[in-house]
Amino acid sequence: MIQLRKRHKTFAGYTEFWEHDSKFTKTKMKFSTFRPEAEIKGCLIWLSGLTCTDENFITKAGAQKILARENLMVICPDTSPRGLSLPNEHDSWDFGSGASFYVDATTPGYADHYQMFSYIADEIFEILSTDFQIAKHKISISGHSMGGHGALIFGLRHPERFQAVSAFSPIANPISCPWGQKALAGYLGDEVAEWTRWDATELLRSGHRHPRPLLIDQGGDDEFLKGLQLLPENLVATARACQQPLNFNLREGFDHSYYFIASFIEGQILFHSEVLGKD
Amino acid sequence: MIQLRKRHKTFAGYTEFWEHDSKFTKTKMKFSTFRPEAEIKGCLIWLSGLTCTDENFITKAGAQKILARENLMVICPDTSPRGLSLPNEHDSWDFGSGASFYVDATTPGYADHYQMFSYIADEIFEILSTDFQIAKHKISISGHSMGGHGALIFGLRHPERFQAVSAFSPIANPISCPWGQKALAGYLGDEVAEWTRWDATELLRSGHRHPRPLLIDQGGDDEFLKGLQLLPENLVATARACQQPLNFNLREGFDHSYYFIASFIEGQILFHSEVLGKD
Repeated sequence: MIQLRKRHKTFAGYTEFWEHDSKFTKTKMKFSTFRPEAEIKGCLIWLSGLTCTDENFITKAGAQKILARENLMVICPDTSPRGLSLPNEHDSWDFGSGASFYVDATTPGYADHYQMFSYIADEIFEILSTDFQIAKHKISISGHSMGGHGALIFGLRHPERFQAVSAFSPIANPISCPWGQKALAGYLGDEVAEWTRWDATELLRSGHRHPRPLLIDQGGDDEFLKGLQLLPENLVATARACQQPLNFNLREGFDHSYYFIASFIEGQILFHSEVLGKD
Repeated sequence: MIQLRKRHKTFAGYTEFWEHDSKFTKTKMKFSTFRPEAEIKGCLIWLSGLTCTDENFITKAGAQKILARENLMVICPDTSPRGLSLPNEHDSWDFGSGASFYVDATTPGYADHYQMFSYIADEIFEILSTDFQIAKHKISISGHSMGGHGALIFGLRHPERFQAVSAFSPIANPISCPWGQKALAGYLGDEVAEWTRWDATELLRSGHRHPRPLLIDQGGDDEFLKGLQLLPENLVATARACQQPLNFNLREGFDHSYYFIASFIEGQILFHSEVLGKD
C-alpha cells in the first residue's frame, strides 16, 4: 500500500510525495512522482545520484512543464534504504545511505536490505502498474551519475521492461573507478567477476544489448569526468565495438550539477516521449 | 568588492553564487545571479520568502531557460544578514535570520545590521550598475511571500528605481497579520504608525503609487491565504479605491510552494521583459 504524503499542483498536473513498505528493502521507502492531469501515455523512472533522495530531481530539474506537455509521468525513487544502522552505512557519502549503486547486495547486513536492483526492477515496476495504471510496455528509465549508470544496467539487464534508456553523466564503468570499486566491494565482496554483472560497460562486453539506441548527455567541464570517476569513453568504445547503438552528447562548458540536467532534460524527455508514445 | 564563489553553465548562460561585505548590514552577504551569455537587456531582482536564502529561487523556479531566451539577468539576495547573534534572532523561523521583511530596523541590535531595505534599494541596486553594467533604468523587482511584499514596498517607495513590480503570494498587509505584526514589532518597536511605512497596502493608502500596473499571482489553495497571513484582498481593494492599476491572478488549486512559482514564473518574467525591453 502506497501512501500519499504531500501533493502540489504543478503546471497541468501534480507533484506528489509517497511512502510505502518495501518487500525488498524491508524498510519504509519514499518516492516522488509528477502526474499530468491529462491521459498519461507512459512513465519515466528517474534514478538520482550519490547523496540524493526522492526530492532532488522533482525540485531542481524543471521537468514538470515538459512532462505535462508530453503527457508523461515520472517516478523518482530514493537512492537507498533509510533508517538502518548497517556497518559503515553512514560513514561516507559514496557508500551506504544515499549510495546504493542500484545493485542487489550480498554482503552481511547489506544483503538483507540493499536490494535496490530488485526494488526498482520488480517492486517499483509493479507499483506503476497496480497503483498508477501504467501499462507495462510504457515504462522507460533515466538517471544521473550513479543513477545514470543505474538506468544503463536496468536497461541492459531488462530490455523487455524498459523501453528506452538514457543517462546524464553516468558512472559508466564502475569496476574501473574509485567510487565503483569501493561500493561494489562493500555490497558484493571482493570477487571482481561478481562486480561485472553490475557494470554497464561489462554487461555490453558480455553480450547484453538494448534494442533501441542509448542516449547519454555528459558535461564537458564535469569535475568527476576529469577525476576519472565516470569513464564514458570506456562505455562508448565498447558500445561501438559490439554494435550497441549509443548517442553520446558532450556538452561543452557544463558541469555535473542539476543546472546541467535542467539545461538538457527537455531533449531526454522528448527521446522517451517518442518511444513511449508509439503503439 | 563582490567575489564569485561558484559558477555553473545553465542553458545559454551562467548561474553564479557571490559574496561581498555589505556596508548596510555590516556582515558578509551572499547573493546568486543568472546571466545570459547574450547581451543583457535588464535585471530582475528576486526577493525570497521566510526561511529562504539566495539559493531557493535559482535552484527551484526553473527561471533560467526563460531568462536566457529573454536576455534578462536575475539577482537573488539573501533574506537577512547571517552570522550574528542578536536577541531572539535564531529562535523562530518567522523573525530574525531568514525573515528580515526587507525593512530598515530601528530596535536595539537589529538597527545595526537589519538594514535590508537600504541594502536592496541602494547597495544591490548600485552593485547591478557597477559590477554587472546594468543601466539604472533597466531594473525591476519581484518576489515570493515575504519577498513578494518586499517587491511591492520597494516598488511603491522607489517607483523611479524599479521599472516593473510583481509578486507571488505576497504578505500583502503585514500590519494586519500575525507574521507581520510579530516582525514589525521586533524590527521597529511597538508604534504602529511606524509600521505603516513598511506595509504595501498602507503605502497605497498614504498616496504612494507605481506608474505601471502591479502584477500578482496567488494560489487559490494556499494554506497561508486560508490562514489569513497574506490578505491580498486588502491590497486589491485599496488599489482599486485609490486607482493603482493591479492585475491579480487567482490560480485555482495551487499552493504556496515553489511548484506554484515554477508554474507561473514564465508569465511574470515576460511581464518584466516587456517593460525592461523598452527604450
